[in-house]
Amino acid sequence: MHNPNVPETLHGWSILHRLYTFDRRGWAALAPERQSAIQSETLRALGQLEGGERHDLALCQVLGGKGDLMFIHYARDFEALAEAEMIFSGLELNDYLQPRDSYVSVLEVGRHRATARIHEELHDRGLEANSAEWIGAFDQALAEEEATVSARLWAQIPRRRFWCFYPMSKKRDDTWNWYALPFEERCRLMAAHGAGAKAYHGLATQVISSSTGFDDWEWGVDLFSDDPIVLKKLIYELRFDEVSSHYAEFGSFMTGLRFSPAQLPEFLSGRAVPRLLEVKEPELAAAAR
Amino acid sequence: MHNPNVPETLHGWSILHRLYTFDRRGWAALAPERQSAIQSETLRALGQLEGGERHDLALCQVLGGKGDLMFIHYARDFEALAEAEMIFSGLELNDYLQPRDSYVSVLEVGRHRATARIHEELHDRGLEANSAEWIGAFDQALAEEEATVSARLWAQIPRRRFWCFYPMSKKRDDTWNWYALPFEERCRLMAAHGAGAKAYHGLATQVISSSTGFDDWEWGVDLFSDDPIVLKKLIYELRFDEVSSHYAEFGSFMTGLRFSPAQLPEFLSGRAVPRLLEVKEPELAAAAR
Amino acid sequence: MHNPNVPETLHGWSILHRLYTFDRRGWAALAPERQSAIQSETLRALGQLEGGERHDLALCQVLGGKGDLMFIHYARDFEALAEAEMIFSGLELNDYLQPRDSYVSVLEVGRHRATARIHEELHDRGLEANSAEWIGAFDQALAEEEATVSARLWAQIPRRRFWCFYPMSKKRDDTWNWYALPFEERCRLMAAHGAGAKAYHGLATQVISSSTGFDDWEWGVDLFSDDPIVLKKLIYELRFDEVSSHYAEFGSFMTGLRFSPAQLPEFLSGRAVPRLLEVKEPELAAAAR
Amino acid sequence: MHNPNVPETLHGWSILHRLYTFDRRGWAALAPERQSAIQSETLRALGQLEGGERHDLALCQVLGGKGDLMFIHYARDFEALAEAEMIFSGLELNDYLQPRDSYVSVLEVGRHRATARIHEELHDRGLEANSAEWIGAFDQALAEEEATVSARLWAQIPRRRFWCFYPMSKKRDDTWNWYALPFEERCRLMAAHGAGAKAYHGLATQVISSSTGFDDWEWGVDLFSDDPIVLKKLIYELRFDEVSSHYAEFGSFMTGLRFSPAQLPEFLSGRAVPRLLEVKEPELAAAAR
Amino acid sequence: MHNPNVPETLHGWSILHRLYTFDRRGWAALAPERQSAIQSETLRALGQLEGGERHDLALCQVLGGKGDLMFIHYARDFEALAEAEMIFSGLELNDYLQPRDSYVSVLEVGRHRATARIHEELHDRGLEANSAEWIGAFDQALAEEEATVSARLWAQIPRRRFWCFYPMSKKRDDTWNWYALPFEERCRLMAAHGAGAKAYHGLATQVISSSTGFDDWEWGVDLFSDDPIVLKKLIYELRFDEVSSHYAEFGSFMTGLRFSPAQLPEFLSGRAVPRLLEVKEPELAAAAR
Repeated sequence: MHNPNVPETLHGWSILHRLYTFDRRGWAALAPERQSAIQSETLRALGQLEGGERHDLALCQVLGGKGDLMFIHYARDFEALAEAEMIFSGLELNDYLQPRDSYVSVLEVGRHRATARIHEELHDRGLEANSAEWIGAFDQALAEEEATVSARLWAQIPRRRFWCFYPMSKKRDDTWNWYALPFEERCRLMAAHGAGAKAYHGLATQVISSSTGFDDWEWGVDLFSDDPIVLKKLIYELRFDEVSSHYAEFGSFMTGLRFSPAQLPEFLSGRAVPRLLEVKEPELAAAAR
Repeated sequence: MHNPNVPETLHGWSILHRLYTFDRRGWAALAPERQSAIQSETLRALGQLEGGERHDLALCQVLGGKGDLMFIHYARDFEALAEAEMIFSGLELNDYLQPRDSYVSVLEVGRHRATARIHEELHDRGLEANSAEWIGAFDQALAEEEATVSARLWAQIPRRRFWCFYPMSKKRDDTWNWYALPFEERCRLMAAHGAGAKAYHGLATQVISSSTGFDDWEWGVDLFSDDPIVLKKLIYELRFDEVSSHYAEFGSFMTGLRFSPAQLPEFLSGRAVPRLLEVKEPELAAAAR
Repeated sequence: MHNPNVPETLHGWSILHRLYTFDRRGWAALAPERQSAIQSETLRALGQLEGGERHDLALCQVLGGKGDLMFIHYARDFEALAEAEMIFSGLELNDYLQPRDSYVSVLEVGRHRATARIHEELHDRGLEANSAEWIGAFDQALAEEEATVSARLWAQIPRRRFWCFYPMSKKRDDTWNWYALPFEERCRLMAAHGAGAKAYHGLATQVISSSTGFDDWEWGVDLFSDDPIVLKKLIYELRFDEVSSHYAEFGSFMTGLRFSPAQLPEFLSGRAVPRLLEVKEPELAAAAR
Repeated sequence: MHNPNVPETLHGWSILHRLYTFDRRGWAALAPERQSAIQSETLRALGQLEGGERHDLALCQVLGGKGDLMFIHYARDFEALAEAEMIFSGLELNDYLQPRDSYVSVLEVGRHRATARIHEELHDRGLEANSAEWIGAFDQALAEEEATVSARLWAQIPRRRFWCFYPMSKKRDDTWNWYALPFEERCRLMAAHGAGAKAYHGLATQVISSSTGFDDWEWGVDLFSDDPIVLKKLIYELRFDEVSSHYAEFGSFMTGLRFSPAQLPEFLSGRAVPRLLEVKEPELAAAAR
Repeated sequence: MHNPNVPETLHGWSILHRLYTFDRRGWAALAPERQSAIQSETLRALGQLEGGERHDLALCQVLGGKGDLMFIHYARDFEALAEAEMIFSGLELNDYLQPRDSYVSVLEVGRHRATARIHEELHDRGLEANSAEWIGAFDQALAEEEATVSARLWAQIPRRRFWCFYPMSKKRDDTWNWYALPFEERCRLMAAHGAGAKAYHGLATQVISSSTGFDDWEWGVDLFSDDPIVLKKLIYELRFDEVSSHYAEFGSFMTGLRFSPAQLPEFLSGRAVPRLLEVKEPELAAAAR
């Protein structure tokens, strides 16, 4: 039975963010051959978890004391995510990592407008809501939507140098209660929000994931760009949007510099800041904007 | 003396959720015979605490850094719950487990509509409220209710792969105060909420337990399903309900993958993600939906 | 100078709640003679602090991970309380106890209605408010009140098996501000609250203590009963009271099973759940309901 | 340039509250000569920091688990305060003290009414606000005020047995916003508040210090009395004041028993509760009420 | 595409605040030659990070228990900031420093009024908003602004003895929502705020940095002065401003005494409070007021 008040959402990668502090001094005290062995084990494991059909992986050097290293795991489903977590937790490198924070979510593409459009079409075709025929047609229309946005649902993690992350929820306050708004009003507000973000097309890549039922906020937002000021400007400008100013609640923000898993030894050595990634996004990631 | 403003509730299992992080690296460093000995002790103890008249037990691999292992203890009463906690705390495995969070509650079946119906019937029979005769009739009617829902009060823990848990309370805000609403209004809102959940019948199994007086929120909610997206959709959709959008406050959410206590050695070894449980729910659990 | 807007309160025992986790595994690793020695030292100290004119003491096995052991200290005054705390802190048992939480308060019997009655009587006698004569008469009337409720002010800790504790304050919100209400309105609300609690007379014993100026909330509430469901029902039912629903703010709740200090070795051994206390309340405690 | 909307304040001692837990068991395990050496070093240092022109010092045995020992440092200015903190941090006693909390503030005497009076006088003398002549006259009047209250600004720490401390701020809520009130209304409310406190003249000694810009709340309040119930009654009664009930926000409260630095060895030994200080306040402290 | 509702901001240094506690007792136990070696390594590294084109650095002795040492890092961009953090984290001194808090931000000069002025000029020139010509003219005007305030964007850290720091955000409450105000109203409020701060010109130096997207609040504020009472008075007085009283939310405050990196050995030795810096601000810093 379809609830006409609730917009459909389509789901892609299962995502786990894990933030660690790194015991740089303890690591530096290890013998070089011990460092090498641990690095080899780690790189082998990360290799399994990066860039495939079943997993993807990003590493970021986090700025400030919230943590030193962020691992972003993508997995095909919760089974694959649990597997990735277990592989990682068994690595010897963990003796030098202290977990600080994490976030569990599922990549989501919201379909506010598409849901409204499908409702309208089915109504125009004279189908009775939630009749067997209606449900069949609805499911078919949704499957077509899913095919359309599949590249966004299953895009690799954007390969850009600067990154920030924050969780957010919609407010349920005395006056401003997102969940008490009519469906049409929510559609209007989300459309205006999307329009505001368009000015940043090509400058930043956004990944929205849903955590309702899985973690403490309703969504997690990852932003990637080649310029950290773009991240700041985008978030600041959208804060003046009607939907953000009245209905958005934000959690803790963190930021950092993405580097390739292959550069991990440089990060661990502390002798040089890892170089910038090649700033060439694959087509899938471009589609995810 | 019966307070006509307060709905009756019926109580089943006493429940303790305990969340732990697992020292996977410390465990891996143990000699195999030491691991075997600890596993044997643990499995013997868990065997006592699973699937009987006096206790039941579920284990979940938790996703993300809030913890690694969730133990859900069911017990016949607080004495049995205290016993389960003490048995578990004495196990050697505790040297490799760090407690992170817990929740104390009692499985509850709310009887908003039944309470209203009994009131009406007794009134129709011409009984004076809170007279001796009225109280006798009320208690008898309630005992009949209890017999009716007994299977739900004493159902085993649902045997489904994916699980999430969150605590919640009803709001007592300036504008939206559940406890200041008339009884009839509360009945109406709860009935609408129940209707919304019906779309998920068979797809998810819900266990509501009350923690008023025992822990920091008023209720704990466990949801089990064969598909984690179902958990997310159910919670998201109900958030648009009138009662949830205006009166619900939610605590911290966590999610994970249930496995059988017999699979604990696999979890501890980290060599393989525990396999899916047989997804066959006993009749009692089915009744608990 | 008496402030006619402020109800009088009468004060009895100074109270300290101390919550600890117990290092059960560390304790179990001790040689039996070492355990015996520590137990003997502890029992001697607890003997001094239990059931006398100057001190009383209760121990509870706490359910869940907030802690394992709650010590409730009663003392004649703050000097005696400081002494109890210092005696306890010096015990060797502390090597196996980790402090988790505490609460400092003074047993209080509020006299909303009595204060109003005395005001009225003095007014009827034609005394000028806050005149020397008025103050003398007021103080005498209050001393009579104190004699009347002395048994409640100095009752021993109720000897019942199940216990819960929570701190609370009165709200000072935009709309609902207890401290901005007229004195008469506060009297009316407290009287209705007391009437609601009467249904539980004999089923539960309540101890209210004030912590204004001493700890983070305004009151601490201890409830004792022979049935934990009674605790839950009492708190749930009172939450619908006008004064609770609009003006009460609640802190963290915890619950457990009271046992006799003499049973501490059983608790420490983990071999058996301590047996139920003799459920016979002394007269003083009965009076405290 | 003087802002007519802002009351003048006069500033005395720079104050640092430092709260510690004491490792009583670790201390007790030390050899007596080691204890003696550490005590001697500590007493020499505390002697430098107590009762002089440049520093004063109070020690309190704190009740409950928030901490065991409170050190209240007074210093002539921030340089002297930094010096006191550094001297204290170098003591060997720190191996047995664990810092738990602290508060940085400056003793403040608010001049709401005096500011209003000076404004009025300068206006009556026909001076133009913020003209050079006006500013000269204002500064002179304020210097006279400072001379008048100098004894309160530089009073030693009150020598009374029982003490409590809490931080507080003025609310800036939707409805009740202290900083948006007209100056005259703030004057009226503060005058009424002061009148309410007068009933406790001689029974309690209050020290207000400001922490705007220095620590997390706007003020810190220390109260001293010979009877802890007086502390509780004073705070409770003032909570019904118009300004407190609507505009005050309170932080965490703690309470304890003041003792002389010379009694520190008794505290450390745990063999006896330190005796009561001589309850004779010097004139300066009396003036600070 | 330019959003006319959002004021332009210009960005300078990337900033990292890092707060540490110092293990003074552990340090004191080191052999003098070990102390010397660590000091030398530290001073060499700090020398690289202070006072250049690419980095600047300030050290403060923090008052109270939030921490002992604050390092304020300025860097040309996020790459340079990541480099500074990595250099610092590898120092042996870290064995005696415990990280407590941090803040990531970018020095910002807001251009509310300039943005409004440019809009007006372009409109007066008859340009169509967001036309290619308009955007070119706008970008040119903004580049001129940036040249004008360049000295403030790239000023060295103010060389004054007393310092305080706090993060802040603008409120998005039911009633007072900064982000829902019209652009003109925001301009008016910010102009009035700036006028209020003018009374402190020359007495205090303020550095505003933005953390939207990077850390948990929207701005960080550093204030420097030769007198700590000036810091307190400035913050207190501005709190009565319309924009602060209604729209500002403040985080945690901390304060301390700035000293030169070359004085670090004195700080570490604990034998003397570091002397006051030469209070001569370079021209750039003066411009930053």
